[in-house]
Amino acid sequence: MKLRLGLGILAAGGLLAQAQVDTQALMGAQQDNESWLMYGRNYSSWRHSPLDEINTENVNRIVPAWIFQSNQNGKLQTTPLVRDGVMYVTGPSNHAWALDLKTGRELWQYSEPVPEDLAVCCGKPNRGFAMRGERLYKVNVQATLVALDAKTGDVIWEVAAADYRKGYSNTVAPLIVKDMVIIGIAGAEFGTRDFIDAYDAETGERVWRFWTVPGPGEPGNETWGGDSWKRGGASTWITGSYDADLNLIYWGTGNPGPDLDGAPRPGDNLYSDSMLALDADTGERRWHFQFTPHDVHDWDAVADPVLVDMEVEGTFRKALVQANRNGHFYALDRSTGEFLFARAYTEVNWADGIGPDGRPILIPGREPTDEGTLTCPGMGGGHNWHATTYSPQTGFYYFNSGDGCQIYHGATQDFVEGEYYLGSAMENVTGEPREGSILAVDPSTGDRQWRFALVSPPSSGLLSTGGGLLFAGTMEGYFLALDAASGKPLWRLQTGGPVRAPAITYMFDGRQHIATAAGTSIFVFALPR
Amino acid sequence: MKLRLGLGILAAGGLLAQAQVDTQALMGAQQDNESWLMYGRNYSSWRHSPLDEINTENVNRIVPAWIFQSNQNGKLQTTPLVRDGVMYVTGPSNHAWALDLKTGRELWQYSEPVPEDLAVCCGKPNRGFAMRGERLYKVNVQATLVALDAKTGDVIWEVAAADYRKGYSNTVAPLIVKDMVIIGIAGAEFGTRDFIDAYDAETGERVWRFWTVPGPGEPGNETWGGDSWKRGGASTWITGSYDADLNLIYWGTGNPGPDLDGAPRPGDNLYSDSMLALDADTGERRWHFQFTPHDVHDWDAVADPVLVDMEVEGTFRKALVQANRNGHFYALDRSTGEFLFARAYTEVNWADGIGPDGRPILIPGREPTDEGTLTCPGMGGGHNWHATTYSPQTGFYYFNSGDGCQIYHGATQDFVEGEYYLGSAMENVTGEPREGSILAVDPSTGDRQWRFALVSPPSSGLLSTGGGLLFAGTMEGYFLALDAASGKPLWRLQTGGPVRAPAITYMFDGRQHIATAAGTSIFVFALPR
Repeated sequence: MKLRLGLGILAAGGLLAQAQVDTQALMGAQQDNESWLMYGRNYSSWRHSPLDEINTENVNRIVPAWIFQSNQNGKLQTTPLVRDGVMYVTGPSNHAWALDLKTGRELWQYSEPVPEDLAVCCGKPNRGFAMRGERLYKVNVQATLVALDAKTGDVIWEVAAADYRKGYSNTVAPLIVKDMVIIGIAGAEFGTRDFIDAYDAETGERVWRFWTVPGPGEPGNETWGGDSWKRGGASTWITGSYDADLNLIYWGTGNPGPDLDGAPRPGDNLYSDSMLALDADTGERRWHFQFTPHDVHDWDAVADPVLVDMEVEGTFRKALVQANRNGHFYALDRSTGEFLFARAYTEVNWADGIGPDGRPILIPGREPTDEGTLTCPGMGGGHNWHATTYSPQTGFYYFNSGDGCQIYHGATQDFVEGEYYLGSAMENVTGEPREGSILAVDPSTGDRQWRFALVSPPSSGLLSTGGGLLFAGTMEGYFLALDAASGKPLWRLQTGGPVRAPAITYMFDGRQHIATAAGTSIFVFALPR
Repeated sequence: MKLRLGLGILAAGGLLAQAQVDTQALMGAQQDNESWLMYGRNYSSWRHSPLDEINTENVNRIVPAWIFQSNQNGKLQTTPLVRDGVMYVTGPSNHAWALDLKTGRELWQYSEPVPEDLAVCCGKPNRGFAMRGERLYKVNVQATLVALDAKTGDVIWEVAAADYRKGYSNTVAPLIVKDMVIIGIAGAEFGTRDFIDAYDAETGERVWRFWTVPGPGEPGNETWGGDSWKRGGASTWITGSYDADLNLIYWGTGNPGPDLDGAPRPGDNLYSDSMLALDADTGERRWHFQFTPHDVHDWDAVADPVLVDMEVEGTFRKALVQANRNGHFYALDRSTGEFLFARAYTEVNWADGIGPDGRPILIPGREPTDEGTLTCPGMGGGHNWHATTYSPQTGFYYFNSGDGCQIYHGATQDFVEGEYYLGSAMENVTGEPREGSILAVDPSTGDRQWRFALVSPPSSGLLSTGGGLLFAGTMEGYFLALDAASGKPLWRLQTGGPVRAPAITYMFDGRQHIATAAGTSIFVFALPR
């Protein structure tokens, strides 16, 4: 019965191939093997494809089907979308391309100039398109949202989400929910006050905004001493998830501003470093969970909120899991925000575990100082923002981790609009050699299943497949296939550039393909004919 | 006896692997399977390797061993050199890299700024290093020659061959002959007077210069009306060949200046569009052969002079063959310069064959005019400059060809130092859709053996191997393996960028590797382990 249902869905997927990318198509994204329709593949952000033509037995025979050289320098962090024989790729500095899925030939390209006076903390990458109807949606780095005609790349409309001159910027892949385009924003390093926005997909009009730092009179504003909320940060630069049954959008938030100096902002600083559950129609907060109250280590909680239904200590839960940058893996009840458990997955010296209330049990003396304080994990985490994957086949959750410690130097810093507001000297972290891991955990317990060691902190996202595979990449340019069950490396290729993106997979022309960005290129692989 | 000799040379090659790249090593380059020591592989410019691990039976199974992404935009036309586990690659705009042969990891990089006021006709590519001792030699585009320490990439010396402000530039791969570095020069599009130079490899001092446009009182000056010799061009931008027994260097020359207007320069315009045989020690001319007297179609004769010993019409000849840009394949006696024969290899409408004296039998009315004249081949040829290959295994000579015609518009143009001097409007050729070919001919007759059609004029050079293979690339980004005997396509990969360079091959780590530039990357292939 299950199998017949599966085939039925596949057939429907085939028929839908020429149809609109509508809510039904997006809800069925996990079963649409010919496409990759959204950042996290499905609304639960699993990044798992059931495709198994390429598997543990034959992955060592995959060869490039084609390569696309973008010749656009910068960080290529895109999750490509695939639909109807076309791959849609966003690049750094407001570039994007549509590529023929058979040959990689460019069908159109899009670009928009980057303002010369734009201030960004971390380059000008972009993490991908969203798709709805015959349109693509992407943010531009100067904090705008643009709608493109998928057939031509022509601009249909472009709206400013915020004023980039105030320090705002944007890199996030949008999420389509119903007839809305949901985006986050970046800028916490410049003392902005950040938000999550919903726009009408047709018109570009804003439907709702949720300020991630509450204003006066709003619940949570009391967690910011004085007027510090005005510069409170809490960016939202990684795509969230969506539970249609609960009608909730889940979206993680980043560090409070200033990053490393807590003195100007006494209190917990809600909703920085938090998971937010927002009503999809109104943007109203249904619940929140703060991972790192009053953060002084830049531990954004933006990483993928991954929705898994599972038993936790004998009780069935609609759960949300996140490998947090503060060094702990968390499971929450996604209906209520209830804290279920947390487990350290890397070296942690700032907390003696997470208490039953979900708050870290702080170890004193780990705050940044003038002289510097050795704290683990370092500034980038632990697990930073890189895409993770949940495999229903193995039942494991996979993420990467930067391992080791760093020396945090804090300093008082005055706020100047549009300029860095880090609460530190510009060289704010020094350190200690750092390494990395790819980790598999049981999401229902946080128990580590295996670890694959990396020689430097991780750079890429992950993909799991029904072929029992986990695809990953490294800062040194290797694109890797691991056995998802054991972590055993099965295949690798030196691509010539850091792998800064997660891979995707799809069926095309009767064959399974694996695609990834690496360096400034897109590589597509398949088994030889 | 022949086989034993071969093995002896191979063994010596192995022992030499740690030794100096001296004259003996360069003379034995054809037998050194672990290395690629000079632009044309051997002094005869064969670009043929006897390696046969990768062959017609298994080439469809080759996979990338590694890729190097240079992230340096521009035309990557390099012939990489390989020696002692390192690959040396030059890129456009004065960039170069040393790469670990196992992983492609960058060992060092070299770069030098390009002057902002540099004038070039055709981009800022570079065609490769030469190597001698522990040093590498390359030209920089501002008409200098630089010697680098091969271990570090540090500059040992740099000398100016000419003043770039006068319109000189350089892109050629140097040729080591004895203790000298031989280079050509570019600039004919700017009315320069060009030359071939020899420099002391130790000190960088110039040993000799041969002016490719003779000055007053020198033989050939009478072929230039008035003082037109001063702006006569005859660039030398592709590497020549060397016959040690005859002590002759062979080097082709380019178009006279101005390119398309013959009126200011009555006469044959020696030694433009010629093959020159120079005494290696003195640079004195021993003989010359002019392919296109008084050229008004920009048909440089710079293409590889390929040295083949063969019977022509029953007589043994030490021959030199060239697929000339004017549409004809030529064979000369390389001892004397005697014209042996010529055969059209593509559509030709400007000459009714080549006479017994080696001069074209002109068809009147093919000169460029204000209104435009349809002439075949077009401006880029026929066979332009792209590296060719001679396979002693098949006995065939391989080159590519741009096929079709163009409309040539001529115009009177005043000479201004350092500015374009084309004798035409800047848009000097219009056209007619053009295609391309890869051709195999019998070099002793010019008889075509096979043709492989390309959808656009060719962009890459060629490599032939003892595995019965011919490697080529296309403007559309395909890297191809053809059956050298039949031209049948056996394998291809879409590399994502135009293939503008010839491939090389070498043994490393017990396996045959094939390397090529494509787009802005280097791709290295081998059979799967």
